Amino acid sequence: MTGRSAISAQHRALLTERLLACLGKDNIVLDVESQRPWECDALPLYRDLPLLVALPATVAQVKTVLQVCHEFDVPVVARGAGTGVTAGSMPHPEGVLLSLSRLDRILDIDPLARTARVETGVSNLAISAAAAQYGLYYAPDPSSQIACSIGGNVAANSGGVHCLKYGLTTHNLLAIKALTVEGEELALGSAGLDSPGYDLMALMTGSEGLLAVVTEVTVKLLPVPQAAKLVLAGFDSVRAASDAVGAIIAAGIIPAGLEMLDRLTIQAVEDYVNAGYPRDAEAVLLCELDGTEEEVAEHTATVSALLGELGASTLHVARDEAERALLWKGRKAAFPAVGRLAPDYYCMDGTIPRAQLAHVLEQIALLSKEYALPVANVFHAGDGNLHPLILFDAGNPEEIRKAEAFGARILTLSVEVGGSITGEHGVGLEKIRQMPAQFGEAELLLFEEIKAAFDPALNLNPGKGIPILKRCQEYRALPARHRHD
Amino acid sequence: MTGRSAISAQHRALLTERLLACLGKDNIVLDVESQRPWECDALPLYRDLPLLVALPATVAQVKTVLQVCHEFDVPVVARGAGTGVTAGSMPHPEGVLLSLSRLDRILDIDPLARTARVETGVSNLAISAAAAQYGLYYAPDPSSQIACSIGGNVAANSGGVHCLKYGLTTHNLLAIKALTVEGEELALGSAGLDSPGYDLMALMTGSEGLLAVVTEVTVKLLPVPQAAKLVLAGFDSVRAASDAVGAIIAAGIIPAGLEMLDRLTIQAVEDYVNAGYPRDAEAVLLCELDGTEEEVAEHTATVSALLGELGASTLHVARDEAERALLWKGRKAAFPAVGRLAPDYYCMDGTIPRAQLAHVLEQIALLSKEYALPVANVFHAGDGNLHPLILFDAGNPEEIRKAEAFGARILTLSVEVGGSITGEHGVGLEKIRQMPAQFGEAELLLFEEIKAAFDPALNLNPGKGIPILKRCQEYRALPARHRHD
Repeated sequence: MTGRSAISAQHRALLTERLLACLGKDNIVLDVESQRPWECDALPLYRDLPLLVALPATVAQVKTVLQVCHEFDVPVVARGAGTGVTAGSMPHPEGVLLSLSRLDRILDIDPLARTARVETGVSNLAISAAAAQYGLYYAPDPSSQIACSIGGNVAANSGGVHCLKYGLTTHNLLAIKALTVEGEELALGSAGLDSPGYDLMALMTGSEGLLAVVTEVTVKLLPVPQAAKLVLAGFDSVRAASDAVGAIIAAGIIPAGLEMLDRLTIQAVEDYVNAGYPRDAEAVLLCELDGTEEEVAEHTATVSALLGELGASTLHVARDEAERALLWKGRKAAFPAVGRLAPDYYCMDGTIPRAQLAHVLEQIALLSKEYALPVANVFHAGDGNLHPLILFDAGNPEEIRKAEAFGARILTLSVEVGGSITGEHGVGLEKIRQMPAQFGEAELLLFEEIKAAFDPALNLNPGKGIPILKRCQEYRALPARHRHD
Repeated sequence: MTGRSAISAQHRALLTERLLACLGKDNIVLDVESQRPWECDALPLYRDLPLLVALPATVAQVKTVLQVCHEFDVPVVARGAGTGVTAGSMPHPEGVLLSLSRLDRILDIDPLARTARVETGVSNLAISAAAAQYGLYYAPDPSSQIACSIGGNVAANSGGVHCLKYGLTTHNLLAIKALTVEGEELALGSAGLDSPGYDLMALMTGSEGLLAVVTEVTVKLLPVPQAAKLVLAGFDSVRAASDAVGAIIAAGIIPAGLEMLDRLTIQAVEDYVNAGYPRDAEAVLLCELDGTEEEVAEHTATVSALLGELGASTLHVARDEAERALLWKGRKAAFPAVGRLAPDYYCMDGTIPRAQLAHVLEQIALLSKEYALPVANVFHAGDGNLHPLILFDAGNPEEIRKAEAFGARILTLSVEVGGSITGEHGVGLEKIRQMPAQFGEAELLLFEEIKAAFDPALNLNPGKGIPILKRCQEYRALPARHRHD
């Protein structure tokens, strides 16, 4: 895939033998059919099979896998729960797929320091579940939080509905432990707010498994808010809903979440889970306020009044916790709901300045006509983090081509209006061609140099995340159907 | 200082001539007496004079200075307001001191996006002043905020009283523009919450001028809280005050600020500004609550009740804004107040887990006796970010030696209890010897490699921030791929 010459049968047999000896046969998956669960992440457009899948159960075993792979000079692709949507953890055909899902122990919850120290494979939601007994929780909440691992969250610098108020993964970390490609231990960050030296923890966060393999994460916990209210507002146009997003922020309120769904998404969600959204609206906003009882009451009144003035055609505050949960269920089920409308969907992740929301959504609607592919929009409106879902049929090569070209146009547009090609999903394999639209030569060269500082042989997750200009195999290595040259 | 051989008189004359031609004589300071204002930062224990001081007024001029210095292969030390306390911007005797104080324009305030885009030399407080008309402010608030520059805040990843609730500089940035040592432009971050590629903006933040020169910063602004209340509590022991810090946090409250002052500091402050602290207390806590009126009222009641239960000997809520300002004035004047007690003080900056507060303060008291040097403690207790001020006389070489040894013991102790050698002040020249106490070989080697990726000739602020272990023969003996010469 990266122009790397194929590993010899003999070399492969030796590598396999070594890993079997170190990990035992229950922790190594060799045959192709058993490897299928690991062939792709949640972007099944891209799939491949590795030399083998390693399933270490301890950090010591992870270290061994890395040391052996280093000795054999083969690629290693680390994988958490495989919920990523950019093919970032797709296996390398000449390398080892290092699954970290068995490292799922919660090591320590400290209610006084308000921290949780957990192994890399622990799911995002499991942290909050373990902290609940102390009235604490972990704030970043990707839609996949029931499954996605904290190590994967670090790799992608994941966001979520609540990141508008509480920040991304990088804002909620205190320390990480990681292993270099040679298997050396790194301890980054500290129990304090800041650390000396370059901020390697922040550098690791969002680095998509290219720099080192995270084995342990210490996160900040927050007190569960006393109260939360959800305001639902329907609008007759996407522009009116977009303007309302700006108005709420401009009113000096930071909602705990501020999400938008467009008409196609609303219909899909209602058909799927009956969340109670107004079917006649062109766009729906969900605005959550949290804090003390009084603060929430005041902000709910302010937001409701504002949305009314701005022409909301529907305006409703969730009556109780059950209704609030149902309204959120609709949002959280939006991806699978839209997934029922077509054989496949392609989720983009451009992030734009809030003031550009209406303009960019209108442009996306025009592009949808141009490419003759429907698009459903459901996204973190408060953050300006778009998630257009382009509907297509992966069984039709022409539709794959069109969907990818449409997606690329959205990303270029995001950069043009001052935003970025990804808000929280990462670059992976999917967006690597858009990196030169985002960055100039100087930045791309620094990316390469930093990669080389950690991983000079380019064995960690090769071909993902950053284009290696000096080599340029990555592009050639893309499966032919994804190349547009 | 870095073993660099002295620049020849001819080379120096040529360099000076080129910079004079590019910047004009009003923007270059050559004679020694005129250079005195730049010979040290706020840690006057370390001082030196540069080849020359350059005072560019535009980014284009900064670029020229860097290009010329790169051509002449001379060190460049970038300096904001010179308020740092680790000798991080002390001039290099063989290099150019690049003052950025004339880049002080506020370029844009966007109330909808809640951002401010400013030049690097703009003072921290000037950002909030400019944003005030929109009801917004910039949250991180170093004690030196009236003077310190935003570029310096980025270099140090500065904190402040309000960082417990609102985060450090790194948590409040959206984008930066910088120039590499060669004068190439870097654009890092974006108007969106996240960016693809490695997080070079986070890497730059706290990098102490070693990687590139920041020229422009886009920060997040926050709505000015509706209300704020300050609770003052006196305690009969440092341990009781320390325990109260943990109890407030454990009660699920995140104060906007939670500061502690010990007996010596209280006396010094009262003698200096009459802030109204209880002179008979062994320790004082200042706990600020902010938010909506109702939230603040509720939290103030909770905190007051808690502090009463925990044995506060004095308990008082500031009656009005005037008294709140006076109580804060005492905290903000604590350094100069303590400065009146001895010819000099040496401020440490270790950060420790909150649970270790009482233990570490007791150890510091014992060390104070061992070294026969008084110490005053005034610090960000909620963050566990200590600021012990060791009193000594810099006119007495033995006292300098003792003060530095005492300081080193505090830093080692901070690391031993799971904390770090610096919370917000950076490493500079002062703490570079403690870096191996904090980091292992693997991390230190990565720091070096990252430095080399940005600045292979080690010309940006050499000798500061990170120890360069592998220069000279060892470095030259490295395989070519690790060498950047």
